[in-house]
Amino acid sequence: MFVPRKILEEKLRQILMEDIGQGDVTAQAIIPPNLEIKGVVIAKEEGTAAGIEETTILAEYLGLKVKTQVFDGEKIRNKQVLMEISGDAQTMLTAERTMLNLLSRMSGIATITRTLTDKLRTVGAKTKIAATRKSAPGLLYFDKKAITVGNGDPHRLHLDDMILIKDNHIAILGSPEEAVKKAKSNASFTKKIEVEVTKSSDALKVAQAGADVIMLDNFSIEQVKNTVALLEKAGLLGKIILEVSGGITAKNIMDYSMAKVDIISMGALTQSVKALDISLEIAEK
Amino acid sequence: MFVPRKILEEKLRQILMEDIGQGDVTAQAIIPPNLEIKGVVIAKEEGTAAGIEETTILAEYLGLKVKTQVFDGEKIRNKQVLMEISGDAQTMLTAERTMLNLLSRMSGIATITRTLTDKLRTVGAKTKIAATRKSAPGLLYFDKKAITVGNGDPHRLHLDDMILIKDNHIAILGSPEEAVKKAKSNASFTKKIEVEVTKSSDALKVAQAGADVIMLDNFSIEQVKNTVALLEKAGLLGKIILEVSGGITAKNIMDYSMAKVDIISMGALTQSVKALDISLEIAEK
Amino acid sequence: MFVPRKILEEKLRQILMEDIGQGDVTAQAIIPPNLEIKGVVIAKEEGTAAGIEETTILAEYLGLKVKTQVFDGEKIRNKQVLMEISGDAQTMLTAERTMLNLLSRMSGIATITRTLTDKLRTVGAKTKIAATRKSAPGLLYFDKKAITVGNGDPHRLHLDDMILIKDNHIAILGSPEEAVKKAKSNASFTKKIEVEVTKSSDALKVAQAGADVIMLDNFSIEQVKNTVALLEKAGLLGKIILEVSGGITAKNIMDYSMAKVDIISMGALTQSVKALDISLEIAEK
Amino acid sequence: MFVPRKILEEKLRQILMEDIGQGDVTAQAIIPPNLEIKGVVIAKEEGTAAGIEETTILAEYLGLKVKTQVFDGEKIRNKQVLMEISGDAQTMLTAERTMLNLLSRMSGIATITRTLTDKLRTVGAKTKIAATRKSAPGLLYFDKKAITVGNGDPHRLHLDDMILIKDNHIAILGSPEEAVKKAKSNASFTKKIEVEVTKSSDALKVAQAGADVIMLDNFSIEQVKNTVALLEKAGLLGKIILEVSGGITAKNIMDYSMAKVDIISMGALTQSVKALDISLEIAEK
Amino acid sequence: MFVPRKILEEKLRQILMEDIGQGDVTAQAIIPPNLEIKGVVIAKEEGTAAGIEETTILAEYLGLKVKTQVFDGEKIRNKQVLMEISGDAQTMLTAERTMLNLLSRMSGIATITRTLTDKLRTVGAKTKIAATRKSAPGLLYFDKKAITVGNGDPHRLHLDDMILIKDNHIAILGSPEEAVKKAKSNASFTKKIEVEVTKSSDALKVAQAGADVIMLDNFSIEQVKNTVALLEKAGLLGKIILEVSGGITAKNIMDYSMAKVDIISMGALTQSVKALDISLEIAEK
Amino acid sequence: MFVPRKILEEKLRQILMEDIGQGDVTAQAIIPPNLEIKGVVIAKEEGTAAGIEETTILAEYLGLKVKTQVFDGEKIRNKQVLMEISGDAQTMLTAERTMLNLLSRMSGIATITRTLTDKLRTVGAKTKIAATRKSAPGLLYFDKKAITVGNGDPHRLHLDDMILIKDNHIAILGSPEEAVKKAKSNASFTKKIEVEVTKSSDALKVAQAGADVIMLDNFSIEQVKNTVALLEKAGLLGKIILEVSGGITAKNIMDYSMAKVDIISMGALTQSVKALDISLEIAEK
Repeated sequence: MFVPRKILEEKLRQILMEDIGQGDVTAQAIIPPNLEIKGVVIAKEEGTAAGIEETTILAEYLGLKVKTQVFDGEKIRNKQVLMEISGDAQTMLTAERTMLNLLSRMSGIATITRTLTDKLRTVGAKTKIAATRKSAPGLLYFDKKAITVGNGDPHRLHLDDMILIKDNHIAILGSPEEAVKKAKSNASFTKKIEVEVTKSSDALKVAQAGADVIMLDNFSIEQVKNTVALLEKAGLLGKIILEVSGGITAKNIMDYSMAKVDIISMGALTQSVKALDISLEIAEK
Repeated sequence: MFVPRKILEEKLRQILMEDIGQGDVTAQAIIPPNLEIKGVVIAKEEGTAAGIEETTILAEYLGLKVKTQVFDGEKIRNKQVLMEISGDAQTMLTAERTMLNLLSRMSGIATITRTLTDKLRTVGAKTKIAATRKSAPGLLYFDKKAITVGNGDPHRLHLDDMILIKDNHIAILGSPEEAVKKAKSNASFTKKIEVEVTKSSDALKVAQAGADVIMLDNFSIEQVKNTVALLEKAGLLGKIILEVSGGITAKNIMDYSMAKVDIISMGALTQSVKALDISLEIAEK
Repeated sequence: MFVPRKILEEKLRQILMEDIGQGDVTAQAIIPPNLEIKGVVIAKEEGTAAGIEETTILAEYLGLKVKTQVFDGEKIRNKQVLMEISGDAQTMLTAERTMLNLLSRMSGIATITRTLTDKLRTVGAKTKIAATRKSAPGLLYFDKKAITVGNGDPHRLHLDDMILIKDNHIAILGSPEEAVKKAKSNASFTKKIEVEVTKSSDALKVAQAGADVIMLDNFSIEQVKNTVALLEKAGLLGKIILEVSGGITAKNIMDYSMAKVDIISMGALTQSVKALDISLEIAEK
Repeated sequence: MFVPRKILEEKLRQILMEDIGQGDVTAQAIIPPNLEIKGVVIAKEEGTAAGIEETTILAEYLGLKVKTQVFDGEKIRNKQVLMEISGDAQTMLTAERTMLNLLSRMSGIATITRTLTDKLRTVGAKTKIAATRKSAPGLLYFDKKAITVGNGDPHRLHLDDMILIKDNHIAILGSPEEAVKKAKSNASFTKKIEVEVTKSSDALKVAQAGADVIMLDNFSIEQVKNTVALLEKAGLLGKIILEVSGGITAKNIMDYSMAKVDIISMGALTQSVKALDISLEIAEK
Repeated sequence: MFVPRKILEEKLRQILMEDIGQGDVTAQAIIPPNLEIKGVVIAKEEGTAAGIEETTILAEYLGLKVKTQVFDGEKIRNKQVLMEISGDAQTMLTAERTMLNLLSRMSGIATITRTLTDKLRTVGAKTKIAATRKSAPGLLYFDKKAITVGNGDPHRLHLDDMILIKDNHIAILGSPEEAVKKAKSNASFTKKIEVEVTKSSDALKVAQAGADVIMLDNFSIEQVKNTVALLEKAGLLGKIILEVSGGITAKNIMDYSMAKVDIISMGALTQSVKALDISLEIAEK
Repeated sequence: MFVPRKILEEKLRQILMEDIGQGDVTAQAIIPPNLEIKGVVIAKEEGTAAGIEETTILAEYLGLKVKTQVFDGEKIRNKQVLMEISGDAQTMLTAERTMLNLLSRMSGIATITRTLTDKLRTVGAKTKIAATRKSAPGLLYFDKKAITVGNGDPHRLHLDDMILIKDNHIAILGSPEEAVKKAKSNASFTKKIEVEVTKSSDALKVAQAGADVIMLDNFSIEQVKNTVALLEKAGLLGKIILEVSGGITAKNIMDYSMAKVDIISMGALTQSVKALDISLEIAEK
């Protein structure tokens, strides 16, 4: 998801504009123009930094100077300074909340993603934590970027980059393997085909029909193990990517990772974000 | 915050477009064109409905037909049908996730807001729960609307509708009452002036300087009570609006509401949203 | 209404683009590329400068160099040089009319606002001249900014920053005090409430109902005085802001200001603008 | 300048959006949703109607119903009803000011244009009143349309539709005929070439060089007559269009029209607009 | 690439707007308003229809009525009527060229794609003709859609839907298999990985490194056959998709299809389009 | 068609954005950030360079450095280096295809335009090759610019800059001279009037009615000669511009140019473009 800085500037400008409306009446009324100040962005709790790049681009776009003290993806401590921003006081105060909203949300997403990933790595599991499209409306880019920064997999970026056959598609088409066959015949050769299944037997069928990825929807650990056994018996294990989704929590995640699944995707990562507490403090004027 | 439907359509179109990219390759590959289906939107947990209006507008804009079963602001039960949507299958499946993301986030925000408000009302408190500008980036409109639906106060809609003097403004200007004086002299008569203070004595000073609203930042219950006493003694209680912010949780919220504050504002309402679980199920084809 | 320069650039780019269409065919046909010239922006009549900031931002955005000779809000004489602009000839000539249209309209608005304000100040009146939303379509930002530059009050910036109950709202709700009560109960605590009345008795009622500002619509001087007397008797004078609107001209404005009103708002300031005559002359090539 | 309705809708939506911001807080707070009302748009002074089409399109776009009582270009009396609008109360009140701003400005422009044109016609002159590009910033389309409605000529629509060589171009190129020659050689055959001159002798030279239109800048009646005589003598009269501009007022306009000029262009028509007084009154609820 | 009609309307509106500028001055000057006419869209040569859907959406969006006589993908004869359009004359004439430009380009692309595909099918080859990203600037959506209509494969829709490692990536990374390894380790599991190679030995290496698709760049038939043999020997044939690109013409295409390649991609399909001759004729007024 | 660089940047940004979508996943996965590289843009066949300016603006906008080796309009040889681009590797590779698509299409258009123009010049003909509005949808600006670079005439830039009465207008109005008369009476004096005719007698009639340009539609050489004779006899030759269109090919173009026509317009120039083969090669890392 590399995006040139200029394209990001435009996305960020639109977010800032919503917050500004006809203008910041407080900055106008009480802050002198052309006053140079310096502010520091400080973490108020520990976590994983994300949004540093985006915040820097927004600040620099507005003419502020930025010294970043941490990189996206770095672990941060409570009270750690993430970046120093200097420049025009009215501009900095007008953009403060937009910058912090970006940093807090993205760092919140990266933090939980990284925490879960690290937990899996401690036992040597290679299972990846993946996002879904359950983001805040309109924030797919920033949410997926934060997932990546937290060592997660962004999964589909939107509706054009992968065939993903879900419950509602299957409700219309009748059976998952029918859906896979139709996709194989109609889709571009450039796309992988993933299909969501609700029973082990369907997993086998769609694997045989040529799916590239199988999403085991709300499977218990037992069901996952049965599915793996079925695929192994059919000689398909390792030739298809296994993703589990639904009902997975910080508690049972280790069990799932032990069960030979490749991907654990969790909607909550981007849908129920706990923002990281980050603030801007004026350091000098 | 009344917005004509056509203006909302355009906001919603932009959100949908991000998710679509160059087109939904799954709907294209496997769903027949011009197939009429019916889907039901179902709550998977109890809460307060929000986003019904926005989702309806988006669906109808796309040519789908909607029968809403609940109104924004209504309490909903687990398994309750919120709306029925019928029309072209490809269109419905392409818009499904965007519609659910709107509903889930907005209902999540409305649910916690309503829960806290109801809790306050059970003891007869008139204290209002209010939002802040700590929303997801670019989602101020939808987040504030959801707060309102949950019987909360949206607070500032963005930077142009109220003077709000915060810690960083004061750090530049030296003292809160200085800031209030400057604001009184420079701001339009159409704007209220709110100021954030960190000690009781400052609360008194800014009240005397003519602030309309005082935000008591991270005050303990004791500090709030002291402030109220100070203002009462100076004959200013009831002539100024008292807002507390910071450190307030579902646990101690009742204590704050007892302490004669008018407004309790909480950034977490929109910054750390727990989405309500809502899904779309194909009911007929 | 502080707006970061980058946000203004985008507003200005859109205005320029309308004037350019597919390109300036005259500059293309007869002006050599990469020719450096210098132009001076000259007032052709006296007044108050406004739009200097916006014109400078547009010119610099296009790569031209600007030396401003006056600041926004400064009194200017006939034949005074307002700014020197140097750089690419094709670019300067293509942007000339857009720059002058901005300067002429904004300076025209600032000039009349400042003239009336100064007139009031000569007799020591503190009454403020205020704008309305009767601007040229789509030009609220620039028109309100020009009002401010001319020492006027911008009044509402748009529909989201204040409750303003007007004749048509009241026609629907029945009575002004009913409308105020409804607003008090439904509106955010962050908003002031203003209400338009057509008789003195209504002014008293809405003041008692808790309005923050009363707009006396088309009141004669006598009516204003009666209203002031009524409010004084009720102990409300000074606790509420009084605005008069309608039928006020340069001639009778002094009488109104004497009558203890706080605000005189005039639609004509932005709706029937007399542009200040300003032109660009090529000084060197 | 025919523009399909859908393109106009988008232009109008952007104008409305600026006025709405995050939403109309007054309509939200005090006007019930889904209340049907009827309003009448009434002229408060006589003039020529313009903007009826644009206002109708905006109202209908928002879902309101419109019965127009006058057409664009029709003479209107004081107190005449221009249109009846019915539909949702919140929507109508939110859009009221934008609709009236369009109508008032466009009718103001059409009124003066029509008045001057009619004056010329009373003595049988065929001289046309024409606009310039001195419009309000960004309002070229609406201002030019209003000129046309008032029986004026819109002149250039923007910078791409005609070669117009002005003083500053000539200052760079040295002489008007040099500029015309360069334009003849470089410009597309689809464009007319107009050139501004400041003396009669230059008028002759540029006519001989092949200009299609000559703009006599700030010429006295005497100078115009001399120029006409010169061109007549050279056999060029009637083969080139003569435009006068600068210093023309309602008083001396008849003299200019007598002097065989084809076009009288006046910047003030769109730069110093006196808005026509038009208002909306709720007729029924 | 399913895109809801409303999203397409917006894309089409922007294309139309460029052509309209400030308005169609011809329709305005000579065509009466509100005149109903009927036009027929006629092919002036045989080919494959494409753009029927897009043109219909644009026409209907503008309020015109459309009866389509052929579907996208249908073979059309010279002089065949493709669609009948009826409605407002000014609107139809203003949109005529934009509609025909869409139809002509898209049908031109579909025609050549279909012709080549049909040629391959006559000998039973399953090889697919595929597009590249060599489209007209900004027209990826329409160009890819036309390819699909002509039974071709759209290939990547843009830069976010597949990993495609090309010559310049390899020039930076050193070797194709190095690039594949890096991609395997860093890319999302949702993406296929394609790599461009210039020699048979590299094809084998990247297949062994785990590429999903190999693009044989400018390979002669001999080279293709050698590569196939190498892959067969390594047991990789059939497990990887083979694409050839470069130097393929209508003449030698059959030879390539015989050589067991899956995909033949050709930049010329969208970069050097021969538009199909299609025109609109007024049938009735 | 002079357009300031900043306006072009925005047009180019939108084109690039379509190609990027949510981000370049290949550059992200395998190219290191902040790696400086140098690339050379090389012609793979001879022709006339166009798009150098636009490509340079896009590259510099993205922060890349450009050394242009040829100017727009220059003849280029096979293997000639057109420009060197250096800077961030991810950025260059992400923008590569968009830059090449611009260059290839614009150079393709300029090449054929220049070739035909040069052919005419070899025999001393002054006839100009002109474009039509048959461009790729939405690419009028770039296509017309390329025509100009190839020494052609851009013809109408869009629908607002000239009256052009075509077959369908005439089908509605009855006769070409009727249409011309209506246009003369209704159109702005700033516009030339062109009319398309299908017989010599009509050419004479519209010339007498005051058309500025006559388009001889699908005339044989004989018909052209007859028309010229008719006009000469009526004393109108040389007073009106003659344009031929339809059925003109590289073969018969010389005959037409001999027949005293001023303009030969050809839709194929922009509708059936043969892109010039141009590529980017990494030269250093």
